[in-house]
Amino acid sequence: MIILNTMGINLSNFFTSKTKNKKMKEFQDLDHIDGVSISTVSANLYNNNRDDLVMFYFRDGANYASVYTQSKIISENIRWNLKQKAKKIFSLVVNTRNANCFTGKQGYKSLEKIAELISVQLSEKQKKDEDHPKKIKLKDIIFGCTGTIGEVFPDEKIKNKIPELVSRIKYTQNKYIWMKAALGIMTTDTLPKMAMEECKIGNSKIKIFGIAKGSGMIQPNMATTLGYIFTDADISNDILKKLLKKNLITTFNAISCDSDTSTNDMLTFFSTGKAKHSKIDNINDDKIKEFDLSLNRVLLNLAKRIVADGEGASKFITINVRNCKNENDAKKIAFSIANSPLVKTAIAGEDPNWGRIIMAIGKAGVTLNFDQLSIKFGSISIIQNGKVNINYNENETSEYMKNDNIEINVDISNGLKSFTVYTMDLTKKYIEINADYRS
Amino acid sequence: MIILNTMGINLSNFFTSKTKNKKMKEFQDLDHIDGVSISTVSANLYNNNRDDLVMFYFRDGANYASVYTQSKIISENIRWNLKQKAKKIFSLVVNTRNANCFTGKQGYKSLEKIAELISVQLSEKQKKDEDHPKKIKLKDIIFGCTGTIGEVFPDEKIKNKIPELVSRIKYTQNKYIWMKAALGIMTTDTLPKMAMEECKIGNSKIKIFGIAKGSGMIQPNMATTLGYIFTDADISNDILKKLLKKNLITTFNAISCDSDTSTNDMLTFFSTGKAKHSKIDNINDDKIKEFDLSLNRVLLNLAKRIVADGEGASKFITINVRNCKNENDAKKIAFSIANSPLVKTAIAGEDPNWGRIIMAIGKAGVTLNFDQLSIKFGSISIIQNGKVNINYNENETSEYMKNDNIEINVDISNGLKSFTVYTMDLTKKYIEINADYRS
Repeated sequence: MIILNTMGINLSNFFTSKTKNKKMKEFQDLDHIDGVSISTVSANLYNNNRDDLVMFYFRDGANYASVYTQSKIISENIRWNLKQKAKKIFSLVVNTRNANCFTGKQGYKSLEKIAELISVQLSEKQKKDEDHPKKIKLKDIIFGCTGTIGEVFPDEKIKNKIPELVSRIKYTQNKYIWMKAALGIMTTDTLPKMAMEECKIGNSKIKIFGIAKGSGMIQPNMATTLGYIFTDADISNDILKKLLKKNLITTFNAISCDSDTSTNDMLTFFSTGKAKHSKIDNINDDKIKEFDLSLNRVLLNLAKRIVADGEGASKFITINVRNCKNENDAKKIAFSIANSPLVKTAIAGEDPNWGRIIMAIGKAGVTLNFDQLSIKFGSISIIQNGKVNINYNENETSEYMKNDNIEINVDISNGLKSFTVYTMDLTKKYIEINADYRS
Repeated sequence: MIILNTMGINLSNFFTSKTKNKKMKEFQDLDHIDGVSISTVSANLYNNNRDDLVMFYFRDGANYASVYTQSKIISENIRWNLKQKAKKIFSLVVNTRNANCFTGKQGYKSLEKIAELISVQLSEKQKKDEDHPKKIKLKDIIFGCTGTIGEVFPDEKIKNKIPELVSRIKYTQNKYIWMKAALGIMTTDTLPKMAMEECKIGNSKIKIFGIAKGSGMIQPNMATTLGYIFTDADISNDILKKLLKKNLITTFNAISCDSDTSTNDMLTFFSTGKAKHSKIDNINDDKIKEFDLSLNRVLLNLAKRIVADGEGASKFITINVRNCKNENDAKKIAFSIANSPLVKTAIAGEDPNWGRIIMAIGKAGVTLNFDQLSIKFGSISIIQNGKVNINYNENETSEYMKNDNIEINVDISNGLKSFTVYTMDLTKKYIEINADYRS
């Protein structure tokens, strides 16, 4: 089977075994999670027949928890999702190309019309296929939207494709349909983002799958971009929410591509409950320790893929800020470095211009004693206790800057708290992509 | 006389009459301010014989006030300046190419050695030329430095040129020497920044001259980049400081090129007191109303020139945010728009992608009712009371985006406070300049 990305590159050869793989261009195989069905279709929103409409269908419903953008302006689909109070969700439908933001009543009404059609179609499917058919209501459906802000929402194009989307649903999934889903939610992404982990709750084998899209307008604040996580574990909405919020801090909320925050950021965690295990009572339950760690790995894997595929990225940058008085100080310094256009352009130019790291630390607004400051690029010590390392060798560092993965290690030495942020460099390609995004 | 800029362009034809001129490529004539002498020289810091060392000499001293960067890491010259407690300053010496930041004890010691030499040389000059010679002390001298952070400070090269710098001092200045000074403090600037106003205090004609350098690492916070303002009025240090702080808010603190804040930002206001007028008792003194306005015009003129010549700038952008609950809200929204890479790249691409303005307003963190929000590009209404204007014409707006000057007008409609920020677009040229700044 040949799977092409939006640039026409055949991704079929990038599949790997299930072992963890650090190369972002290789994908883990996501196969089947009981209780989740996926279908994709082209509603021709890009006028090029690529898949741009993706449906996730939970035939017995799924527990769920979402976090949304902290922007004061939110898209109509987020407004919709916030109003739905169902205990279980039966379908998530994601479209790309149009963010359904600043589309006012028309945008919201469109979702209502689309949801009505989905409700009819899925209810019929339930009647036909299920032992205990359920009438799917509007409140059982949520939406993800991504794309341009402020354009009229193409409800007719989408509605026309709902019957086909529903008819394509199969009850067993394979790696190709997950890849098609990950491709279907992309905008300027060049690669789909998928991740998976397996773990145990008690004696039951549990899966956690995730897909995401990123690329631009990325500095999450509680949630970013689109991310959808699925598990067959049986976890309550309340515990799903707590697990998500806790694990976001060091993953989706620790990345930045361009310091911009989207109006459409959405991260949802679905649990189908198909895997049988004893009840989880609270987030500190020992039985979910391994699950908690696995969730973190899935989120971090996706978050890193978002950065690695950030618009125009040529380098993946890890910024470790260590030994601060508190985590907030470490975070402020790390993001100040990550968001500095001057740091990002220097790295794009493979120039070990550490003076700009100093500048970015200084402007973070954190009081520090710079006689205690140490800076390393990778393992190369540049500043030691506030002084240029006497063995510092610029040629060696220039060599290091040629790597695809750059690590900046900052040690503040006045406390015990650390924070790591992931970002990418700022290249001419970023300008190219964004100067002409809509044409 | 031929005056070349750092790119070898002859600037001699750009001089204009003293009338205000909005074209940033034309310069007002700065001639003579009584009590200020200037000399420039090449210490060969760039290895290309351009002028890179500038001395301002106040033969009878000058009252003064400075504001400095808010960065938590400051350069050694700022550390030096903060220690000097003289009532009057006799000399300001500015070097370019090396920021003298993160140069530790060597950097500070270098300034001491240079100051000692200046003190000897200027004291000898006083003995020779003045009726009432004064011994110039170390505390009578301040420094401005700009350039790369963290390189060893080239004290020998600078010291070698101090005798020549002092010997070149003339007591009458003309437009060429001001231009040479403005050129001598440049780094990646392509044009010198000069501005002047004339006004009256009582019956005395008063001059206010200013020069500045900008280009990159520019989001001021109390002061930015290097700016030096000179007047022949007789104003106390205390009132100079108050006037400077007050007028910074809407000028140097209302610009942003790339959201980065320098470790070396310095803005100093010198008053020689050579113009005779009655004593100014306080900042609210009616006699200095006109002077106050003129100072604002000089600062705004320089600030705008810094933005217009921002690294890689192809467009000058004015962002007016009106009718907010308080000035801070207006400022937050205006800077959120000004610093958004996605807004800045869209403008570079001449794309009226107003969705990104919405995004930037949303992420500013200000609570607003977006049914009251209005957005205009220039006079073209795009959003009116939260809805796309029914007469909105994208072709007309695309035409507007081709202008060199773009105005973004945002009306929040929930208060009476406004703020204006000046910025420029983000182009491939910015990346080019900054990916390879040090080579």
